[in-house]
Order: sequence, then structure tokens, then C-alpha cells
Amino acid sequence: MPHYQWDMDIVGVPGVEAEAELLAAIVTFFQRLGLGPADVGLKVSSRKVLQAVLARYGIPEASFGPVCVIVDKMEKIPREKVVDELAKLGVAADAIEGILQALAIKTVEELESLLGADNHAVADLRQLFSLAAAYGYADWLVFDASVVRGLAYYTGVVFEGFDRAGTLRAICGGGRYDRLLGTFGGEDQPCTGFGFGDAVIVELLKDKKLLPQLRHQVDDLVMPQDESLRTEATAIAQRLRAAGRRVDLVLEPKRLKWAFKQAERCNAARLVLVAPDEWAKGSVRVKDLASREESDVLLDQLV
Amino acid sequence: MPHYQWDMDIVGVPGVEAEAELLAAIVTFFQRLGLGPADVGLKVSSRKVLQAVLARYGIPEASFGPVCVIVDKMEKIPREKVVDELAKLGVAADAIEGILQALAIKTVEELESLLGADNHAVADLRQLFSLAAAYGYADWLVFDASVVRGLAYYTGVVFEGFDRAGTLRAICGGGRYDRLLGTFGGEDQPCTGFGFGDAVIVELLKDKKLLPQLRHQVDDLVMPQDESLRTEATAIAQRLRAAGRRVDLVLEPKRLKWAFKQAERCNAARLVLVAPDEWAKGSVRVKDLASREESDVLLDQLV
Repeated sequence: MPHYQWDMDIVGVPGVEAEAELLAAIVTFFQRLGLGPADVGLKVSSRKVLQAVLARYGIPEASFGPVCVIVDKMEKIPREKVVDELAKLGVAADAIEGILQALAIKTVEELESLLGADNHAVADLRQLFSLAAAYGYADWLVFDASVVRGLAYYTGVVFEGFDRAGTLRAICGGGRYDRLLGTFGGEDQPCTGFGFGDAVIVELLKDKKLLPQLRHQVDDLVMPQDESLRTEATAIAQRLRAAGRRVDLVLEPKRLKWAFKQAERCNAARLVLVAPDEWAKGSVRVKDLASREESDVLLDQLV
Repeated sequence: MPHYQWDMDIVGVPGVEAEAELLAAIVTFFQRLGLGPADVGLKVSSRKVLQAVLARYGIPEASFGPVCVIVDKMEKIPREKVVDELAKLGVAADAIEGILQALAIKTVEELESLLGADNHAVADLRQLFSLAAAYGYADWLVFDASVVRGLAYYTGVVFEGFDRAGTLRAICGGGRYDRLLGTFGGEDQPCTGFGFGDAVIVELLKDKKLLPQLRHQVDDLVMPQDESLRTEATAIAQRLRAAGRRVDLVLEPKRLKWAFKQAERCNAARLVLVAPDEWAKGSVRVKDLASREESDVLLDQLV
């Protein structure tokens, strides 16, 4: 199965205005799919929360990335295993306790009382929630300190889309990665972005019966009543197409009964029949499938 | 470099009406790209031409596919090499001569005098050209018996798109393959289709300067004049987006001079400035980039 993903990144903007803009795009996408804030949400946090906690316990900066990768797995592996892996990394027992307590925080107020109002993570998140209110998507946003995302290179705000029912994996995920470009030999640039794969969202849309049925849809089904009018029917089909209509041309000798059924099967608005008697009078037979009305239409009036 | 290809197939229609419909789709595509019949054409022939010639010389049917694969390379390898490879396949010298003479034919009339009017290839091609005239794309079609296509499974009409200047490889190619499905264990079904890759057509469009420049294009560039109006500007941007406009929101503190330049760079129709004095009066400053006119617009009149 091929897998598709759309990504969006903003390069050069250091403030959370960029994250707010990306989250606005994700919410717009959700809305266009027919999803509301009762169906899905966006968990946000900041890697700076963990950074502040690690600094408090004197844990070296080099351990930051590895710690993030371990705690990101917290929902999937038992707590003891996380503690174990952090200990193996050389993190002291009280620091591990401090990290796990910080990651359990679910409100910005609680975070502020732990880290102080001056803390960068707190200031970023306050600004982000204020912008979310201005955009009008505050009710889609949830602060959750346990969100750290599994990629080592995030440096600031991180976020992930989730289903409110809590049965699926993350729908999308992203964050700020201000120091990634430098690792490829370039100059560092403030960057923030997200990836949004097709797998989980399609599963969700199926569950919610919101996956659109892409039906075969044509405007006109054109058919010659007999093969002697094949080229005439072809020319009619081509003329209607040139006028912008979606036309299915019947390519084989078929009975009228089949044509009526086929017109229904392909949701055609009209059946255009090129028949000998009408053709002799310079017209074609047109059946409107919605009104079930039939009439002869002169060729120069056929659109 | 990833490679993209679009394909189109008609299953279940045994007549050349299907090929005519596919060729109509290719011509429509060419036209939408801005190409005309003086730029590109479609060479058509039928595998049945070769089949008739082989039958005439008593060459077994099993040799048909391999012969096609060899003669398809005729434009790329010397004639002696083709003769050599056919001889290795067990084709007699007079038959080789007959095959090469038949493949040199460039008109359906000449083909008819070789194979007779009853021949299937001749009848198919006559019908195809008559339908092409009805569709209105006869001037894009060229009969060329040397077109056999390199895939062994074609059974009837074959075609390929080419540039009239003759400098590029085939633009697209296809044909009828009525006996392919059976080889996969299913029941045979009349099938005809084509593949159309992106590589050659993009080269051609570049040569003809027809490759569209996909420019960054927005309707409104929205900017707060200072950061105290950041959330207000965000709400304005969001409102304009909800009204269907494409909006770029300036995400960092920037000078007015930069904004005017940026509006030009992104082809914005308007610059919408959220400035303190105007905001106090319930309006924003709007500059129309085309007319260069500036005016204050009340919020409830901003669309």
C-alpha cells in the first residue's frame, strides 16, 4: 500500500505565530473534512518544558534528545521500563521522578506554578493559546505536557492531532526544529512544520462515515441508436465536451434499455440519443434523467 | 527523480471506437497544455499489419511477439542488426524483406493495396481515421506502419505520441491488448489503453516555453502595524480566509516598507494593515496594489 503524507513548514519565523498559523491550517483541513472539535483535537506542549526540568536537575544538554525519545514512548511501554531506560542514560532517580511529574501536567497554570511565569515554555504556550483564540480554534487545542514527539530534533512547541475517542494513533504531528538545518551543514534557521499522513485520518473518516463516495459522475451519456450514426454521435459527444460537459460516449452497439440503465448507473443528467428520424430533422433526442422528460433538441440549440 | 505516469484504459470494448476515444483524450490533454497539431502528432498502426505479413510467409504465431519486439527497435539499431535478429528467430530471408517493406508503408491506401480491403488492419485503420475526423482530431493523426510498440502483448491498433520536430523520444504510447488478461489467469477481455509519462512532455513544454510558472499568489497580505495588534490582525486574516480569500499573514514584526515589497512579491491584490488609529475607529487600512489606492475600510464592510 502506498502511503501519502502532506507536510507544511514555515522557515524563518522564530515566534509561535508560525506554530499558530500551522495549527490554523490543520484545523481548516479538519473542518473541510467535516470534522469538529468534538471529533478531533490538537495536543500541544513545548520541548522547553522538559529542557527546564532537565536543567533544574543538572542533566547535561546532550541527554536532551535521548530523554525525549524515551519519554515519547510512555503511552506505549510500562512506566517501569521508561524509568529503567532513563536510569540507563545516567539520569538520577529524583530527576526521573521530577521529569515524570512534569510530563503529567495538564494545564498551563500548573505548568506556570512549576516553572514560573518567566519560563520560555510558559510564555510560548500562553501566546499560542491567545493566538488560537484569535483564529477561533481555541476549543480544538489541549495542553498536555506528555506530548514530546518521538523525533530528537524538535526544540520548542510540539503538537499532535488526536481523535477524541482515543482509539487511534496520532493523526498528524509536528513542532519547532530551530537547530535541524545546522546539522546538515547549513546555517541554522528558525523552522516549524508538521507531517500529516493519510492512514489514520482515512481510518477516522471511515469510522465517522465521512469518507466521500467518489462516484462515477457524468453530465451526458451520448449514444447512436444504430451504428450508421456512429460518427454523428461521436461529433455530438465531442461538441458537448468542448462546451465543458462531462460526456460518456457509448462505444458499442447497445439497446435503448441498456442506455437508460447505464445513464442511471453513471448518474448522468441527460441521455442524448442520436436516432435516424430525429437526425433527419436536424435534431437529437434528449432525456432529462431527473425530470424524466424527453424532447427533440435541434443541433444548434444543444448545449 | 520520481517519475509520474498517467494511464487510461477501456475494458470490454472490442472495436476501435475505444482507441478513438483514448486518442481523443490525449489530444484534449495536448490542447489544454497549449500544444497544437503542428507541435505534436499521434502515429498509429496496427499489429495486425505485421500479423498479416507473417501469415503470408507461413511464420508461426508464436514468433509474433518476439518479431514485434525486434522491429520496434528499428529506429535505434542498424537495419543489418534487425535483419540479423529476425534471422536468428528463424525468419527466412524473403519474409524478412517482406516484413521490412510492409513496415515502411506510410499511407493506408498503400497498405490496402498490399493486404487488400478485407484485411482487418486496413478496416480498423479506416474506421479509426473516420472517427478521428468526427472527433475533429484527424490532423493530429499519422499512419505509420513502422510503429509496433515494444511490448509483446499488443494485439491490434498501436499508437504513440511524437513531437513533430523529431528530437524527442515517444511522448506517450499505447494500444490494444485483448489477450493480456488471460495470461494472468483470468478470462480474456477486450482492452485498450495507454501510458503517458511526465518526462518527455515536460521536456517538450520547456522547449516550447509552455511550462507554466506556478507563482506564489495570494489575495490579501495582512499585517499588524505593531505587535499590540497581533491577535486583531490574526482574527482579520482568519475572517478573510473564511470568506474564501487566500491570505498571507505576516508572522513577525516588519516595517511598512517591507510589507509593500512583500505584497508585490507574492502578487497580493491588497495589503490589509491593522494599525492603531484606524483600529480605534473600527477600521483597517487597505491598499489596492493594482490601483495603488489606499482607503480605510470599516470592519463590517471588509470582504
